[in-house]
Amino acid sequence: MTNKKQRAMVVAGVMSGTSADGVDVAFCRVSPGVGGGSPKVKVLGHRAFAYSKKLRAEVLKVAGAREAEVLSAAEMARLNWRLGEVYAECVAKAGEALGLKAELVACHGQTVYHQGAAAKFLGEALRCTWQMGEAAVIAERLRVPVVSDFRPADMAAGGQGAPLVPMLDSCVFRSSKKNRVLLNLGGIANLTVLPAGAGVDAVMAFDTGPANMVIDAVMMRCFGKAFDRGGAVALRGKAVAGVGLRGKYFELAPPKSCGREEFGSAFVDEFVDECEPAGASKEDVVATAVGLTVESVASAYERFCLPHLLKFAEGVKGAEMLVAGGGAKNRALMRGLAERLKRDGVKLGTTEVSGIAVEAKEAAAFALMGWLTWHGMAGNVPSATGARRAVVLGKVSLP
Amino acid sequence: MTNKKQRAMVVAGVMSGTSADGVDVAFCRVSPGVGGGSPKVKVLGHRAFAYSKKLRAEVLKVAGAREAEVLSAAEMARLNWRLGEVYAECVAKAGEALGLKAELVACHGQTVYHQGAAAKFLGEALRCTWQMGEAAVIAERLRVPVVSDFRPADMAAGGQGAPLVPMLDSCVFRSSKKNRVLLNLGGIANLTVLPAGAGVDAVMAFDTGPANMVIDAVMMRCFGKAFDRGGAVALRGKAVAGVGLRGKYFELAPPKSCGREEFGSAFVDEFVDECEPAGASKEDVVATAVGLTVESVASAYERFCLPHLLKFAEGVKGAEMLVAGGGAKNRALMRGLAERLKRDGVKLGTTEVSGIAVEAKEAAAFALMGWLTWHGMAGNVPSATGARRAVVLGKVSLP
Repeated sequence: MTNKKQRAMVVAGVMSGTSADGVDVAFCRVSPGVGGGSPKVKVLGHRAFAYSKKLRAEVLKVAGAREAEVLSAAEMARLNWRLGEVYAECVAKAGEALGLKAELVACHGQTVYHQGAAAKFLGEALRCTWQMGEAAVIAERLRVPVVSDFRPADMAAGGQGAPLVPMLDSCVFRSSKKNRVLLNLGGIANLTVLPAGAGVDAVMAFDTGPANMVIDAVMMRCFGKAFDRGGAVALRGKAVAGVGLRGKYFELAPPKSCGREEFGSAFVDEFVDECEPAGASKEDVVATAVGLTVESVASAYERFCLPHLLKFAEGVKGAEMLVAGGGAKNRALMRGLAERLKRDGVKLGTTEVSGIAVEAKEAAAFALMGWLTWHGMAGNVPSATGARRAVVLGKVSLP
Repeated sequence: MTNKKQRAMVVAGVMSGTSADGVDVAFCRVSPGVGGGSPKVKVLGHRAFAYSKKLRAEVLKVAGAREAEVLSAAEMARLNWRLGEVYAECVAKAGEALGLKAELVACHGQTVYHQGAAAKFLGEALRCTWQMGEAAVIAERLRVPVVSDFRPADMAAGGQGAPLVPMLDSCVFRSSKKNRVLLNLGGIANLTVLPAGAGVDAVMAFDTGPANMVIDAVMMRCFGKAFDRGGAVALRGKAVAGVGLRGKYFELAPPKSCGREEFGSAFVDEFVDECEPAGASKEDVVATAVGLTVESVASAYERFCLPHLLKFAEGVKGAEMLVAGGGAKNRALMRGLAERLKRDGVKLGTTEVSGIAVEAKEAAAFALMGWLTWHGMAGNVPSATGARRAVVLGKVSLP
């Protein structure tokens, strides 16, 4: 099945994040690189679909389950199947709305368990991961090949199974002349550093800390709203300097990754308490949460990315930082980042300069990875995941 | 990835049954059929490996879990991973022992949940199945492509996801001149009927009732032993006629399948009780369990297979019945079947006449199905599973 002649294909990338709010579908045209170069990815259109309330509750129940919580095998088998049906429906609906037909579906699935650090099980240390959404159902309903289950191969090769998006970053945004840094502002903020003219081995990627995870939580506590649309509330407030920035996560050198363990409700409790002595209004608290993201991204850039750029792209000054993810729509956050990073010679933009809509980037990344797998090509970036080698990701289901 | 030129390959088929006792590995040479005919399968060698006690207990815990029982997502993700490691080790060990190197691994995995009948979940009716054993781990450890997860595609196409072995039966044993019936004597006995000269659409397959499930259980109760090696105990006893044969399962017309629900410990309790009034010795009880299998197979043959053979192979007299599975090693059972079926013009033999070792047949069936998938060819037999169409089975992981 390998070494198939590379050809341009319309690939539907399908992503569900750990926030478990729904499904992002990005229809992309993925084409072979010219003269052995990196493949090209063009987002042709994208759509987002919310999970039904029932399904979201079930996903959160299963995905939120820790060691102590309990489920039945039947329930998990059924959720895997139902998610497959939902993904198939979402791809069909998006394709209809966009007037496009996918030749290949690349489905990340819904993560219900991810254990990046080794733990003992039956006397053997292992790491593992688990994404749900039965690919055979998608292949049968849509009658197209499906690539699914992208993370296990990287983990089997010694990696953490994440981050995987740096492959898209490297293929689409690497420049021979400019330093480029990709910033994704999802629940967590992460950076991918692409030194000018350097190869894929020089890619650095890590999580800088919280983004929407804390901003959204603060919005819920102060205003009972799920998020700050456009950053309107934060723009009316004034940030209290330094709040939330003393955690030890920010001191750690990359590679590093974080999540609800570090920046969940316990962190938010403390964060809100810390704003009070400064006499912060509710708007000020939201602005402070935005400020926390701005400052943690900027200081990570200065401490970890700058030395890396100097090492791999000596003499190239400054960098372009291209933002994607829901946070790219938050004007307070974008304005804060642009102002704060100016002193470092960083010019802020979004991934749309390269034709990747900010909401579609993760789904587009899986479209690219699916295309690579279909052609028998590796999809992970070992310097980002820690894998021993570049490996073909995922499993292929034929219709 | 489809329509690849067919070529002969050494494929390692890997099977773990619902008894959860371990892993069967069959190294097979699978070659394209001559002139568009069915592919050929030759078992080059095979090995069986027992699960460790710890692993078996864990598998039984997960696989035995019903709706009411409970598990954590972490535990299941870890078991899936650990089983992948175990399968990789078993294939490596078998290959070393046999002096063979697999070009492709076809791994059935360990079934932990199978729901052939539709049930409501989040308001939608669905059927589903779940086999564990992470294929990415096998591909990485052995550095060969792996086909896994064979059952979901058939179910997504409306089938029951079982039985899948009829594809091997049809490819290897179909004859233009003779009626052939394949009998597998595992925990459950099942028949595949191949009318002389008929195509794959004329294949009939179903479970006739219990085989080793009841014989082994009776051995455990009467002698505290796991099974009756070679049928030695049964050969010393005398069967009580008719015991256990009045269950309604035997009356049902195919397609039908059965398991522990019908022939588990409740059935065995009643079975043993029924032997007592006849003054049966312990050896007689074991012989009666053998007699139950003999009679249920033979009467299923007469009621369901004979009319089917007459319909699809009019004028062809008698049939050859080829036995595989652990029960083929039980001389009492084989002798009983040979004597009982003689009156129907059935000649008893084993699959070894066609080069398929009786212990290796199921693993060899998955080797064939993996080879078919690798070449983009369908692997299910719709008349056996009830699927709407023939589909490519499984998922391909590339090393």
